[in-house]
Amino acid sequence: MEAAARVIARRGVRGLRVEELAAEAGVSTALIYYHFKDRAGILHATLEFINDRAGRYTTERGPDEPPLDALGELRQTLLLEFQDTPEVRENSTAWGELRASAVFDPELREDLARATLVWVQEVAELLGRVRPMGGAAALAGSAERLTALVEGLSVRWLSGSLPLAHARDLMAEAVDAELERLRG
Amino acid sequence: MEAAARVIARRGVRGLRVEELAAEAGVSTALIYYHFKDRAGILHATLEFINDRAGRYTTERGPDEPPLDALGELRQTLLLEFQDTPEVRENSTAWGELRASAVFDPELREDLARATLVWVQEVAELLGRVRPMGGAAALAGSAERLTALVEGLSVRWLSGSLPLAHARDLMAEAVDAELERLRG
Repeated sequence: MEAAARVIARRGVRGLRVEELAAEAGVSTALIYYHFKDRAGILHATLEFINDRAGRYTTERGPDEPPLDALGELRQTLLLEFQDTPEVRENSTAWGELRASAVFDPELREDLARATLVWVQEVAELLGRVRPMGGAAALAGSAERLTALVEGLSVRWLSGSLPLAHARDLMAEAVDAELERLRG
Repeated sequence: MEAAARVIARRGVRGLRVEELAAEAGVSTALIYYHFKDRAGILHATLEFINDRAGRYTTERGPDEPPLDALGELRQTLLLEFQDTPEVRENSTAWGELRASAVFDPELREDLARATLVWVQEVAELLGRVRPMGGAAALAGSAERLTALVEGLSVRWLSGSLPLAHARDLMAEAVDAELERLRG
């Protein structure tokens, strides 16, 4: 799965060839087909892998760091999507590619819609902990906007239209604006 | 250029073949190479074309419609990016594709960064007419967020993760939130 995320981040979903993936992973193409059945199976598993990995790098805390409050957790989960590390770049590139490919490939859509929903719900839950009086619809709307903004800013960053530090500032201000709005 | 936008919206930037474009436009490949030199030239001209077209469909008013005030113009320019017409779908798909391809293709980046800047400045200018006391940096930040959100919501809409009417509602609320923020 790491190899698949790497190959997709390097060449895009549409450039994904099972032969290259097998070489990158150091296994045979037969083994890949055995495990994932087909290209759709590979993409499905890759999406799960990059979601799990994003879940990890947007929530991790050092052993000596004090636990975060809800606001800290909300900020961290959205801002840590903007880091200049190979892992985050690769993850973000692969996610953006799966998203862009789903416009052309209906096979990808269901998985992606489900993954988007899970992400939106996680952010809505954090927003609700900061604003316990925010209504469910308002919390969901804010979470949809914040996560869509992560996607919009990430692809600008990765395509060279937006410096990373500025993307992070824009994101931090968006969190403040949504929290202000949810105060009612 | 219409043919190029159509072919890109159908198959993606990476699926763009000059032969198919020539067939779609009903001209020879030689004529296309004569006019645009190479693939980069085609993409450059296509980006200009879709920007001009978006400029038209996000600002057009019927002859009997009263002129809009600054707030109306701001809302219209952002909300008319979400319409279920072949033109808007095609434009939005092609723009998203150029954006996603620029992650992999440095040749596209400069044009795209320039087009993004022009768009951000237009929106910042409209925001400034609604909030004349908003500082330049705050106006630019709001415009960057709103345009990045258009991109993020559009690709969700086009990839089947978000119904169009809901995308429009989310966008309208984002405009309100940014204007509230700019009130200071």
